[in-house]
Amino acid sequence: MKIVRVQTDEGIRYGGVEEEGIRLHEGTPLVAWEPTEVVLSFSEAKLLAPIFPTKVVAVGRNYEDHAKELENPIPEIPVVFWKPSTSVIGPGAPIIYPAQTKDLQHEGELVVVIGKVAKNVAADDAAGSILGYTIGNDVTARDLQKSDTQWTRGKGFDTFCPIGPAIETEFDPLQGQQIEVKVNGDLRQSGSMSDMIFGVAELVEFITAFTTLLPGDIIMTGTPAGVGPMEPGDEVEVSIEQLGTLNNPVVSP
Amino acid sequence: MKIVRVQTDEGIRYGGVEEEGIRLHEGTPLVAWEPTEVVLSFSEAKLLAPIFPTKVVAVGRNYEDHAKELENPIPEIPVVFWKPSTSVIGPGAPIIYPAQTKDLQHEGELVVVIGKVAKNVAADDAAGSILGYTIGNDVTARDLQKSDTQWTRGKGFDTFCPIGPAIETEFDPLQGQQIEVKVNGDLRQSGSMSDMIFGVAELVEFITAFTTLLPGDIIMTGTPAGVGPMEPGDEVEVSIEQLGTLNNPVVSP
Repeated sequence: MKIVRVQTDEGIRYGGVEEEGIRLHEGTPLVAWEPTEVVLSFSEAKLLAPIFPTKVVAVGRNYEDHAKELENPIPEIPVVFWKPSTSVIGPGAPIIYPAQTKDLQHEGELVVVIGKVAKNVAADDAAGSILGYTIGNDVTARDLQKSDTQWTRGKGFDTFCPIGPAIETEFDPLQGQQIEVKVNGDLRQSGSMSDMIFGVAELVEFITAFTTLLPGDIIMTGTPAGVGPMEPGDEVEVSIEQLGTLNNPVVSP
Repeated sequence: MKIVRVQTDEGIRYGGVEEEGIRLHEGTPLVAWEPTEVVLSFSEAKLLAPIFPTKVVAVGRNYEDHAKELENPIPEIPVVFWKPSTSVIGPGAPIIYPAQTKDLQHEGELVVVIGKVAKNVAADDAAGSILGYTIGNDVTARDLQKSDTQWTRGKGFDTFCPIGPAIETEFDPLQGQQIEVKVNGDLRQSGSMSDMIFGVAELVEFITAFTTLLPGDIIMTGTPAGVGPMEPGDEVEVSIEQLGTLNNPVVSP
């Protein structure tokens, strides 16, 4: 099923996507939730990021063609970094182009949403810790990423982590689904889930060997080749087969 | 005043330190809190980390003598990195020595506790965003910090962020208070708040220029010279004048 998070007049609610619209639920899919009688039409529902994580673990250089395009070696272990929860925005929300950068770039990615407390999880057991999958854009100020010794600013500005539109619980990333990124309709990035250097199960094992993932935390699994600039006024779309499309405009500060 | 957080049979409560003990409060000092009639003796109160942050922003190489001891240049802008909220532990709680490292080190630091939502705060206005100050230990797996390109694992294992014991709201870091770290009673690190390369107000300005700090978020302000190894069985004490002492044992996994 597809899970969304919706801003309503009564507050934020989770919803399940049905043929005729979005059925609002009480509670949260991370603990317990129950369907209500309320179904919103797709046009009236204001979608938020489908989850609000306590933390975002992201993976760099996880597609060989992307590692090569930035002249980086193929990593022997996953290159992991944090993005702050305050960088998360939802579908349609603006990515703010910061004054500190002159090179803002898109990185379309598959996002893993954790469903249960996960520590020291073996790759073979990883599926049991996962609620589902969504789409993300690991927005990057490439110049700051290079000039700072750590990627904290380059990856961490407010609005640098668009995710959504929905969490698909039936997705299997081993099926080689295609990912595409378009800017103003022009294809910029494309790749396949099967091209990841470290697969989702290996990433869960590596990450939970040092940190506890909490329900709702997310893993951004890396981006394929074709990363490039975004400018104020651009519309960026990240699409993954079965997961839909994540759209965000880029705006001046 | 000094603010603590206490585990009670009825749940977690904030408390204010008084001469005869800890007065429990209802609510939180981040929003609104009210004193109750209950005062716990110091010996019966089980202290937790005095705050549970949504994120931890830490600063590297912020004391000249420490930058030099690790053969790093003096930074021209703050070197900032994240530690995850799941790495936070309280006074007395064990620091777990991970199997993945052979070089676990202490870094005693002054910690800033944010009291209000803070974005684009000028240095001159920084004091208005600060609830108070506490003590921290930026526990580091030095070998992983060096071998990984990012400091994510080296600084981010569970239990790598002891803080406490209390938040002092009357502290002024411009007064040059002394910081000391002892391992099993032997002095290892010492320095003065006045030796920071970037002061607290400058750090708040730099950090809030790219990310929104939320109430309860913390800034670890960097460590003076003398960093060194900790072994299972060690007792580590970080002391700062006016703030008291943060004690943590080191244990095997």
